[in-house]
Amino acid sequence: MDAAQEAHTREAFRQAVVNTLERRLFYIPSFKIYRGVAGLYDYGPPGCAVKSNVLAFWRQHFVLEENMLEVDCPCVTPEVVLKASGHVDKFTDLMVKDEKTGTCYRADHLLKDFCKEKIERDPNITAEKAAEFRHVMAVLDDLSAEELGAKIKEYGITAPDTKNPLSPPYPFNLMFQTSIGPSGLSPGYMRPETAQGIFVNFKDLYYYNGNKLPFAAAQIGQAFRNEISPRQGLLRVREFTLAEIEHFVDPEDKSHPKFSEVSNLEFLMFPREDQVSGQSARRIRIGEAVTEGIVNNETLGYFIGRVYLFLTHLGIDRERLRFRQHLANEMAHYAADCWDAEIECSYGWIECVGIADRSAYDLCAHTDKSGVPLVAAEKFSEPIEKLVITPVKKELGLAFKGNQKMVVEALEAMGEKEAMEMKATLESKGEVEFQVCTLGKDVTITKSMVSILKEKKKEHQRVFTPSVIEPSFGIGRIIYCLYEHSFYTRASRGGDEQLNVFGFPPLVAPIKCTVFPLVQNQQYEEVARCIARSLTAAGITYKIDITGTSIGKRYARTDELGVPLAITVDSTTSVTLRDRDSKQQIRINVDEVASVVKEVTDGLSTWADMQWKYPAHSSTSSED
Amino acid sequence: MDAAQEAHTREAFRQAVVNTLERRLFYIPSFKIYRGVAGLYDYGPPGCAVKSNVLAFWRQHFVLEENMLEVDCPCVTPEVVLKASGHVDKFTDLMVKDEKTGTCYRADHLLKDFCKEKIERDPNITAEKAAEFRHVMAVLDDLSAEELGAKIKEYGITAPDTKNPLSPPYPFNLMFQTSIGPSGLSPGYMRPETAQGIFVNFKDLYYYNGNKLPFAAAQIGQAFRNEISPRQGLLRVREFTLAEIEHFVDPEDKSHPKFSEVSNLEFLMFPREDQVSGQSARRIRIGEAVTEGIVNNETLGYFIGRVYLFLTHLGIDRERLRFRQHLANEMAHYAADCWDAEIECSYGWIECVGIADRSAYDLCAHTDKSGVPLVAAEKFSEPIEKLVITPVKKELGLAFKGNQKMVVEALEAMGEKEAMEMKATLESKGEVEFQVCTLGKDVTITKSMVSILKEKKKEHQRVFTPSVIEPSFGIGRIIYCLYEHSFYTRASRGGDEQLNVFGFPPLVAPIKCTVFPLVQNQQYEEVARCIARSLTAAGITYKIDITGTSIGKRYARTDELGVPLAITVDSTTSVTLRDRDSKQQIRINVDEVASVVKEVTDGLSTWADMQWKYPAHSSTSSED
Repeated sequence: MDAAQEAHTREAFRQAVVNTLERRLFYIPSFKIYRGVAGLYDYGPPGCAVKSNVLAFWRQHFVLEENMLEVDCPCVTPEVVLKASGHVDKFTDLMVKDEKTGTCYRADHLLKDFCKEKIERDPNITAEKAAEFRHVMAVLDDLSAEELGAKIKEYGITAPDTKNPLSPPYPFNLMFQTSIGPSGLSPGYMRPETAQGIFVNFKDLYYYNGNKLPFAAAQIGQAFRNEISPRQGLLRVREFTLAEIEHFVDPEDKSHPKFSEVSNLEFLMFPREDQVSGQSARRIRIGEAVTEGIVNNETLGYFIGRVYLFLTHLGIDRERLRFRQHLANEMAHYAADCWDAEIECSYGWIECVGIADRSAYDLCAHTDKSGVPLVAAEKFSEPIEKLVITPVKKELGLAFKGNQKMVVEALEAMGEKEAMEMKATLESKGEVEFQVCTLGKDVTITKSMVSILKEKKKEHQRVFTPSVIEPSFGIGRIIYCLYEHSFYTRASRGGDEQLNVFGFPPLVAPIKCTVFPLVQNQQYEEVARCIARSLTAAGITYKIDITGTSIGKRYARTDELGVPLAITVDSTTSVTLRDRDSKQQIRINVDEVASVVKEVTDGLSTWADMQWKYPAHSSTSSED
Repeated sequence: MDAAQEAHTREAFRQAVVNTLERRLFYIPSFKIYRGVAGLYDYGPPGCAVKSNVLAFWRQHFVLEENMLEVDCPCVTPEVVLKASGHVDKFTDLMVKDEKTGTCYRADHLLKDFCKEKIERDPNITAEKAAEFRHVMAVLDDLSAEELGAKIKEYGITAPDTKNPLSPPYPFNLMFQTSIGPSGLSPGYMRPETAQGIFVNFKDLYYYNGNKLPFAAAQIGQAFRNEISPRQGLLRVREFTLAEIEHFVDPEDKSHPKFSEVSNLEFLMFPREDQVSGQSARRIRIGEAVTEGIVNNETLGYFIGRVYLFLTHLGIDRERLRFRQHLANEMAHYAADCWDAEIECSYGWIECVGIADRSAYDLCAHTDKSGVPLVAAEKFSEPIEKLVITPVKKELGLAFKGNQKMVVEALEAMGEKEAMEMKATLESKGEVEFQVCTLGKDVTITKSMVSILKEKKKEHQRVFTPSVIEPSFGIGRIIYCLYEHSFYTRASRGGDEQLNVFGFPPLVAPIKCTVFPLVQNQQYEEVARCIARSLTAAGITYKIDITGTSIGKRYARTDELGVPLAITVDSTTSVTLRDRDSKQQIRINVDEVASVVKEVTDGLSTWADMQWKYPAHSSTSSED
């Protein structure tokens, strides 16, 4: 299958999934009766239930399991907070405008589309040109506004709809802006992420945790990005649910006590070096990845493992899930390491979870801006020996004049090992060459210029800014990928039709069970209602269908909603329970059926367990 | 106790509650390190857990129990939707500005404060003046901008902080405005309620429900109101969680099949007539209230009953909960009836849930604006007899000239009874007096002007706009009232201190259970960790405290968080389980304790059941 065919197949598959999702109201383009708004979607009843289930499992798997501190902060955020975080200045995309109509486009999208189109559709393209276009696509994210503008000009790219000329690219801030209070003097934004709400509360949360590290805080909530021109359906939207964890840890000790619980997990990883050298993702044991330094530290590794368990438990196909390390140019300058959980769907490999070691960046930024120190302290049981570096400023001033300050700072910034080596050299040789980065050269330090001592100073605690390790989950993207991974079709009994099935695990399924009286009759209906009541009491979501529609049609309808179990009432004492994927059936007493359904949907038993326990039902006439 | 003393007591109680809530991070003023933003609060860890619990119970009690269709729509809403709903034009408060500093105030608040101050603090006030101020306070909500301005002028009210003169009152729209997309041409707002997201989806939801009425849709989500100057702490905020139900019903049949399940509930109701005649709220059976027409219809009554059960189950004191009917001037012109669940707290009686029969207003508004008919149809099994009124336009034109159209419309709008009476009169007398409201007078209709027939027309269905009954829950307000109703203090063992307790029911408690090793020792700690693991597996939130703090202090700390049960590990085989409110203790085996805690916190057993089942533990030394 060549690339074009493959693209066609993907497209057709996506259409089948999306049609089913829209028809069954998993989602609805928002404000549809007013022709909608690009990038805004509603979750309809089954979609809303899937989302609830995913979030409930997220709470169980992360918050409860790790005793995290969950918080819930407002979406409306004053400017000062997002100024500190860098969003006001840097949370932008480059935009070009149709010079006549004013329609806006993302500059990088236009350039990418142009290159892709040329490579895929231009039969006369030279190998050289094709390589150039490929290169442009590879470095797209690194291009400045000027470089993007130059390329657009060079290639003669015009507005897609009108062919009008385009403006030069300029940055557009992606936050929804608003004004807080009536004065018009307090600008605010709808938060672009939930993380900042946690950072600004660090001091209180640290106190709540008994002034102890490490601890994690978590938040689930809406976030907003005013995309220039949303594409990719449910994957690039203007409002979405994020679930974020901020795990605060001592930068000098990023080990994790529970790392051994995940260290033997093996899954697809795609380290930076492999990407650069053109290799593919490969199976690596996460324990090995940490030991070999592929993953920066144990805590980061622990969360990568936990994210793997979370996603596969939801039903994400492990063969279409990989952890890709950020390339140097993708990563913020302050980040220690960063991995994305990417899930393959018809749009390609999609970033669904980001797991980053953001070092002390965020807490430092808010400390600076607010003046409130967001720090932790480690108390020592005994006073500890401390390295004391004392530059002799007079001597240094004489020797380095205007550069004195830089030399002093460089000396004071030495780590213990470097300082002790310098001390030894000075004692043996009287002088030493010393690199001062800020001067861009080496200088000669003599014995009289600095004193280096390890002394028993009365140091009872160490005050420091914690590092933060941040797993950040795009819930909507995970759910969309889950839809694609769960979807399949199978022939109807007659073979004349393809029927859609969402093979959700019970954990995720929007409705756990259906109740169908086999035929319309009062006795069966009463039994059905009685079962329905016991399902409600057991907290199981169900759908009851007492229409006279054929049982096969009723199964088909609910297979399409991903309902794992169906109860068919075909007698007043016992009923038939059917499994969605195998279509196998067993017989169970009326008064037992709710508890059986509960056991299976709570994950305490499997369908196989139940087949072993209850007699099979082999009426083949039912599914026509 | 006089009014001033009572106010003082209330104030002191509130301070005690609020201090505890803030100190234990139930909530945190948002962006505190930047000095916060009025009207924005974070839920800290215990507050967030309480909120989760309340919402989970809401889902169980309403959505699951009634098989409601839950949806989840975006907060960002385009202008056209809120134009249709009336929010763009009418969702305003009247504001005055300090003419020198520009500081804004709510006009009605200033006037109310002034009157209150005068009544309460002015010793020289005449009875007549006092009556006038009381009257102003009573009609405050009905005053127009002009009337408010005139009163402010008359009383010489100035800006509270500066004593500067004030501008005349003018309307300020309470929605946070923003702009959707990069063009700046698509105004949008942060939704002021979640209801509109449901209304615009009516057509799809009705289809999803098999084109059958009644059905209910529900939504939980954030809503936003850009208050002019938020007061009353957690009760009047700029962003809050709403949980709303829109129950769609045939306007000709508002009975409810499950009404009998609530009809015997009796609770405090405050009908319109009783308020007007100066009586107090009184206990009424909801079944009686519906039969006697105090409550407009069964469905409205059913939801009032369900709301009562919801709130009292959460722990709201039934003596401080009342259902108050809206007065004629409070209710929108289209509403059929409206009741607020009001909860009494230190701020007075606070509206926490509104339960309104909004008739067909919302669906009609969106039908008009969007051009998409949001209607339902009732199919008849047989064609039905139909009233046909045919005005003879020629005759009417001759008789009424320019008023013809109004007369035609009035004739066509007649109900069956009125029309059949007119038919009889015309047949016997040849003419009839007929009131035309739009003309403001009666006209004389003669036999030749109209034909009235009941004919067997082939009418197979009736198309109509459903009525909507809307219970709307302010989750934050309910939670705040719950805090006040659950809070109490008791003397410490030594009697030297007052200890705070939140007496939450297990359902609501942020943490269900604590695990304390009695003394610091490795064996006990291991047992504690083992119990902790089994609690996690059972899905129970717990707090483990292995510090050497005295057990009494540890109890006090967690009583303040409202933790209902405490496990103290004082042997390696069995443990002590303590009940928060009674402080009684029982002994349970280590391997049984998690399941006992689960039974009690899930509400399957009570503490009394457990006391009957397990031996008492009577060590009195522990709580000092």
